[in-house]
Amino acid sequence: MRRLRDVGEHAWLKRVIARLGRVTDSRRILVGPGDDAAVVRASGRPLVLTTDTLIEDVHFRPGWSTPAALGRRAFAVNASDLAAMGGVPRFALLALEAPGGMRVADLDAVTTGFAEAARRAGARLVGGNLANGSHLAITVALIGEVPGRVVTRAGARAGDVLYVTGSLGAAGLAVRRRRLPAAPDRVRAGVVLAPVASAMIDVSDGLLQDLGHLCRASRVGAEVEIGRLPVASACRRALGSRAAEFAATAGEDYELVVAVPPGRERRLLALRRRLGCRVTRIGRLVRGPARVRVVDPAGRSLRIDRRGFDHFGR
Amino acid sequence: MRRLRDVGEHAWLKRVIARLGRVTDSRRILVGPGDDAAVVRASGRPLVLTTDTLIEDVHFRPGWSTPAALGRRAFAVNASDLAAMGGVPRFALLALEAPGGMRVADLDAVTTGFAEAARRAGARLVGGNLANGSHLAITVALIGEVPGRVVTRAGARAGDVLYVTGSLGAAGLAVRRRRLPAAPDRVRAGVVLAPVASAMIDVSDGLLQDLGHLCRASRVGAEVEIGRLPVASACRRALGSRAAEFAATAGEDYELVVAVPPGRERRLLALRRRLGCRVTRIGRLVRGPARVRVVDPAGRSLRIDRRGFDHFGR
Repeated sequence: MRRLRDVGEHAWLKRVIARLGRVTDSRRILVGPGDDAAVVRASGRPLVLTTDTLIEDVHFRPGWSTPAALGRRAFAVNASDLAAMGGVPRFALLALEAPGGMRVADLDAVTTGFAEAARRAGARLVGGNLANGSHLAITVALIGEVPGRVVTRAGARAGDVLYVTGSLGAAGLAVRRRRLPAAPDRVRAGVVLAPVASAMIDVSDGLLQDLGHLCRASRVGAEVEIGRLPVASACRRALGSRAAEFAATAGEDYELVVAVPPGRERRLLALRRRLGCRVTRIGRLVRGPARVRVVDPAGRSLRIDRRGFDHFGR
Repeated sequence: MRRLRDVGEHAWLKRVIARLGRVTDSRRILVGPGDDAAVVRASGRPLVLTTDTLIEDVHFRPGWSTPAALGRRAFAVNASDLAAMGGVPRFALLALEAPGGMRVADLDAVTTGFAEAARRAGARLVGGNLANGSHLAITVALIGEVPGRVVTRAGARAGDVLYVTGSLGAAGLAVRRRRLPAAPDRVRAGVVLAPVASAMIDVSDGLLQDLGHLCRASRVGAEVEIGRLPVASACRRALGSRAAEFAATAGEDYELVVAVPPGRERRLLALRRRLGCRVTRIGRLVRGPARVRVVDPAGRSLRIDRRGFDHFGR
């Protein structure tokens, strides 16, 4: 069983680049992996840029998943940020930190899983880096394009209606069960929703917390009807009456929260079939301080102390 | 003295974004830091993309430098990769891993140092990420443009003449003395040299090793005249007769090695004044296996066992 320290940085990179195949075939990629930097051609549309890191013992633990699933997830959580702007991924960079004792086959699988996820999404892995670290850390930068309208967190107004794609809670449940959650692909949904959305954000740290970011950026309040949340059935079965609150705060879902002006709701409903996932009305935006109020089916406010994830526990 | 764990991820990011100021003023940046992703406009020229990481206790140790210098260096080593393609940096992403016990003021200084270095180079910090890690790790992605000709490692031919910018050895000496080396800014030199260069690479892991990458990509051999190397005076003073060999292998210099066809050497010399640094002829490319031969002033081969740095010691 070969370890990274048996192979070395340069030899590993050379192997991986050979295994990825020539990506310069594409008319968009002038210089692929293996040079000082990649050179690509953009289409002239606005570029959308993001970066995010998955760290062993912080975002996942060894044994939670296959290395290939980890690579796929590293791509998916970054693609989710582009989706929330109405963007699609085109070019990916992969910066790896890994200990010398890591199995070469495992790091190969992380990289291959990442590259395959990128390719399925219409993007290509064009460059990266490998450095010796005390633990595995996967930092991704994605460069995408916005084919239509750019949607930020800041465009929503009081009166807009709140929707969420897919379902909530299954990812948080997976983490609680020490499994790496799957991250859905909402790139297509983001592009389809962009023309009708006044604001979007993806749910990474928990619906209530991420919706709070949207509220602060748009200077509006929000009311979420807890009874309307599309709680994943696995989460409902496992947690029963506590499922909705868990789904509202656990995070890791990578679904899109979308604010839609009431005048565009009919257009949204007409677009449903093109999203590739369901979309559920969960509340509305209101005048007042940028706070998220959670209400029960009778309209009473619920107090939910936990709001979502913060890396330093605040 | 406030630590990261006293402030929290989201509050820290909010403060940093406020401190960086609005970068959306620029007509090139449609959405700056603080949303799910940044949105920018490219000029239509080819894009050049790179990523690199600086890790505590791997690339530097605590106390080697000020945090601001660390941030500046994180920018510079990435900009060097773009320079080696003939590219200029435009947009930067900064993914930080930091322990909860890190001083907030120190992480602020890393970020500010990075953002200032980017701005001086004509680029803007448009997005980033902060995650809780066991040590400080700074991963940068740079998105740049190639204003003129794209230069790879692969275009050189036997007979081409080898030049190197600036001087070698001072950075390796700094590391040996437990100081963070300065990385020169060769972006301008890269752009000026691109029209006359057949191939370029930057010296990160050691001149001989990096030149070896250029040789393999171009399928040529190289002869380096050790007596011609522009050894930094500090290195010469400190190491005397061993200085040139040290300078050829120590790495961290972030100078450019440039192959120039003999027919373009006069044009190169005419460009010297525009480089912002000196450029020195150090050898030539030859037919044969992709190996770097080091010769003394009498033309005899020197055996140099150490070639450069590999993250896993191979």
